[in-house]
Amino acid sequence: MSQLLTGVPASPGIAIAKAYRLEAEESIPQQRKVDDPAAEQQRLRSAVDAAKADIDRIRETTLERLGPQKAEIFEAHLFLLDDPDLIDTTLDQIESDGVNAEYALYEVASSIIEALQSMDNEMLRERAADVKDITGRVISKLEGREHSALSELSAETILIAKDLTPSDTAQLNLEFVRGFVTEIGSRTSHSAIMARSLELAAVVGTGADASAIRTGDMIILDATAGQVIVNPSDEQLREYTTRKAEYEEYKTRMRSYVDRPSVTADGVEVELASNIGGIDDLEKVLANGADGIGLFRTEFLYMGRSSFPSEEEQYSVYKHVLEKMNGKRVVIRTLDIGGDKELPYLQLPKEMNPFLGQRAIRLCLDKEDLFRTQLRALLRASMHGKLAIMFPMIAVLGELREAKRILAEERAKLEQEGTKVSDTLEVGIMIEIPAAAIAADVLAKEVDFFSIGTNDLIQYTMAADRMNESVAYLYQPHHPSILRLVQLVIQAANRHGKWAGMCGEMAGDSAAIPLLLGLGLYEFSMSASSVLPARELISRLSREEWAGLAEQAIGMSTQQEVLDFVNQQLRSEA
Amino acid sequence: MSQLLTGVPASPGIAIAKAYRLEAEESIPQQRKVDDPAAEQQRLRSAVDAAKADIDRIRETTLERLGPQKAEIFEAHLFLLDDPDLIDTTLDQIESDGVNAEYALYEVASSIIEALQSMDNEMLRERAADVKDITGRVISKLEGREHSALSELSAETILIAKDLTPSDTAQLNLEFVRGFVTEIGSRTSHSAIMARSLELAAVVGTGADASAIRTGDMIILDATAGQVIVNPSDEQLREYTTRKAEYEEYKTRMRSYVDRPSVTADGVEVELASNIGGIDDLEKVLANGADGIGLFRTEFLYMGRSSFPSEEEQYSVYKHVLEKMNGKRVVIRTLDIGGDKELPYLQLPKEMNPFLGQRAIRLCLDKEDLFRTQLRALLRASMHGKLAIMFPMIAVLGELREAKRILAEERAKLEQEGTKVSDTLEVGIMIEIPAAAIAADVLAKEVDFFSIGTNDLIQYTMAADRMNESVAYLYQPHHPSILRLVQLVIQAANRHGKWAGMCGEMAGDSAAIPLLLGLGLYEFSMSASSVLPARELISRLSREEWAGLAEQAIGMSTQQEVLDFVNQQLRSEA
Repeated sequence: MSQLLTGVPASPGIAIAKAYRLEAEESIPQQRKVDDPAAEQQRLRSAVDAAKADIDRIRETTLERLGPQKAEIFEAHLFLLDDPDLIDTTLDQIESDGVNAEYALYEVASSIIEALQSMDNEMLRERAADVKDITGRVISKLEGREHSALSELSAETILIAKDLTPSDTAQLNLEFVRGFVTEIGSRTSHSAIMARSLELAAVVGTGADASAIRTGDMIILDATAGQVIVNPSDEQLREYTTRKAEYEEYKTRMRSYVDRPSVTADGVEVELASNIGGIDDLEKVLANGADGIGLFRTEFLYMGRSSFPSEEEQYSVYKHVLEKMNGKRVVIRTLDIGGDKELPYLQLPKEMNPFLGQRAIRLCLDKEDLFRTQLRALLRASMHGKLAIMFPMIAVLGELREAKRILAEERAKLEQEGTKVSDTLEVGIMIEIPAAAIAADVLAKEVDFFSIGTNDLIQYTMAADRMNESVAYLYQPHHPSILRLVQLVIQAANRHGKWAGMCGEMAGDSAAIPLLLGLGLYEFSMSASSVLPARELISRLSREEWAGLAEQAIGMSTQQEVLDFVNQQLRSEA
Repeated sequence: MSQLLTGVPASPGIAIAKAYRLEAEESIPQQRKVDDPAAEQQRLRSAVDAAKADIDRIRETTLERLGPQKAEIFEAHLFLLDDPDLIDTTLDQIESDGVNAEYALYEVASSIIEALQSMDNEMLRERAADVKDITGRVISKLEGREHSALSELSAETILIAKDLTPSDTAQLNLEFVRGFVTEIGSRTSHSAIMARSLELAAVVGTGADASAIRTGDMIILDATAGQVIVNPSDEQLREYTTRKAEYEEYKTRMRSYVDRPSVTADGVEVELASNIGGIDDLEKVLANGADGIGLFRTEFLYMGRSSFPSEEEQYSVYKHVLEKMNGKRVVIRTLDIGGDKELPYLQLPKEMNPFLGQRAIRLCLDKEDLFRTQLRALLRASMHGKLAIMFPMIAVLGELREAKRILAEERAKLEQEGTKVSDTLEVGIMIEIPAAAIAADVLAKEVDFFSIGTNDLIQYTMAADRMNESVAYLYQPHHPSILRLVQLVIQAANRHGKWAGMCGEMAGDSAAIPLLLGLGLYEFSMSASSVLPARELISRLSREEWAGLAEQAIGMSTQQEVLDFVNQQLRSEA
């Protein structure tokens, strides 16, 4: 009989194939006394070297297949294999306890993993998986096992595993692997991110249920719905074969929107832009025909390194992005560090409530040098495309004026030095703090545009940390309070002849797009994969009609009421 | 020549008298080897017992003079003197190291103090002062010194000290001490709180400047301005003698408002209520002629103990307050725990951003038993006065409905059991989350009243932790964004025939009161000491005139603009 498992839809798609179970190799090494600790230490060193060679090979492949950002994780792995906390401590333990290398390494790594897992910081917890990954690899080498046969699969397969390490995922043979299912993981774990990059169907976090799946079981993986059917009936096979075809047809249809304009059924043109976190994301933006970049998060330039990026370094990245976008608008957000994002080389005091602390523009106005370097790089790059500079976390007019004053100073300096700066450069702000939304009319006079950052705006408006499970029920993008703030912002912009955009997750949400359109939003910036569905949806909507419907939604009492209303309306139009 | 020092105005008043310097007794004990550790341990035990007897005497005096809440700190001190971390560890150290008791105790206490001072938690840091206080007392006993001669002062005196411990402050001889100056401390340190309770002029946190003041120096203490003049000129003495008389005249004039109604110059009646944190505060509320209690924080009932307070215990406190207020309205807020407020017997998961976490009503709806006990106590107490129940941290309608459903269930149960519940009981919510302010019209239909909690509302609207110095500049009560939210809330309440109040610090601020009055606020709840100045101010204002002026203020761009406008207006009226 068939069995249904559910999990987190980590990367969309439908796949039908036989299961291949990747056995967890995490056997706990036995303790053995050794007579010659020096020889045992040498064994460890050789195994570490062999593991490094493997990882370096995986890094190369990933670099080719997925670009430099995705390959970074393996640089981190190589780095970890030089970490004295791990390797030197293990060497010491082999000597002091006279035990075998496998056991000593396992013990040392376990205590590091445990410490990392107990951390408050999501990023540090993720590091635990990396330590596990490399430790497993070295132990395999010590035990003379091959770490994984993932690259050697030779028939169409859906991979089943307790978890996939970053190196597992990077090694998948895409010719044969159609998707994967893991027992643990979330939408933001490495494996999920990799799956989306590889456009591979994936369901993660099924819990222990998936442990019963055996190699050779027939599997239907409906990763769009987060469902896994094990040993389906003939009827289910027929049904899902049809659905798979429909899904592929849908994807083909979406692709037909790549070169079309973003225009509503009643002829209103809007801008469907994309959010990027680095230059690796550009390819997908272009492949999905986005009208521009609505949010370029510059944090990646500052992360995973040991000192600030130079003006020159930043300039070349900004220039590259502007050139690639070939005249389409690129909104670059100045550094949004602080809060939950830390830099190892910028020691910031620990804050009790980092989301309410000295982050983004607040920090930049306090550390002017840092800010000026970025602004100079941006100003210089402005000659290479259509640049818009955006300041994050503006709460009050004084902050905007201060940021603009510094920008004007740097501009004047550059021009005095004979460096040209574009005359069409736009300067705007993110609206992500309730105070800024409420006083948007005051701010609108002194900017070229607004971009509403809904992730933070919702979190502050509801006073609910969006990373905190206990208050997750308050993350309500469709709540009338949020819609009212969005309306205030758009009206203020339009009244002053400025454009209003949105770069939070809400901008790509199909149940929000009709309302936002109705409220008069001009620019929608979303993940690249949402651009085509959004363009298709918008082509079916009338802005005039949704202006009236949005007005109704704004008068409602709860998010549920709004959602029911929008969905019913969309169904009746379909 | 005279010298001017400035510090934090901790408790208002003007005093002119000679200085008495309280020398810091914190000499670092010398290490001495002892031959008979057992005898040394006995010396420590005797000193601890003697210190306990002292503290117990101070506790008794404080209880009489200042009531049970202020005496609690000394119970904590007695408790600390039984703490094995402190005393047993010291006893062990005497034995293992064979050193003298003074030295061992000093060492052990220092490491505890250091650990506490490095904590993130303000309350734990304050505990460091307590450990220091009791340790100093025990060491004095061991060294055969009298710990402090504070109770023996015999002439008019202004006390000068590096810091005053809670026991120092509690022992001040009020017949002769006219005020005090300390080098360290803030408005919220124990000594500052005590000074306000004792109505004693005090300036704290002057920094090292005050260390130059010697016993016998003439001092003018202008604690209202936070200024200390050392060895003033004759002219200054004359000037401040006049000012002191004026200040006392002002206080007398204020006292004349105790029994007057709270009514504007154009005859509009408002309610000037008071915030209280416990029954100890009642006396001051009554002495200042408040029209009611606008916020009774019930947290004190749950703090400083090892288990939840019973329904009976709560009932008797609520009943006592209602009876004392003799028919005047008492707004009791249900438990607002979580965030930065923790209970030792309620283990809550550590949150990354506690101010955006599971606090107040969010926690109560999750831990229903806890909530139901409090609601039953409140419902039963409702028969003893004019009770209004207020739910804190309501963000969305669903939470309000859920809280009201639980309240209705408990009411029905009580009535079924034959217990009467008042028919005039009011149920309202605090508006302290932007979402609630923005959708106040939705919420107004289902409450009897709103009370705007500005401390949190400002913090969330500005996305700036009000305890974080780096973003303190964003705590702007007079910012147009805040005024707009306040206006939305008041209009929504009035349109639905409900009353709107305010219980944040803003409600007692003389530069905010005129605007709030103009916006139509009905109830202002503030610290008891602000009630009379507010009543006097309101008696001079025209609501009609300020309705127009507030409308103007709301259209302004910055807080500074609003403040300048209000102050100019008030000056021109004076």
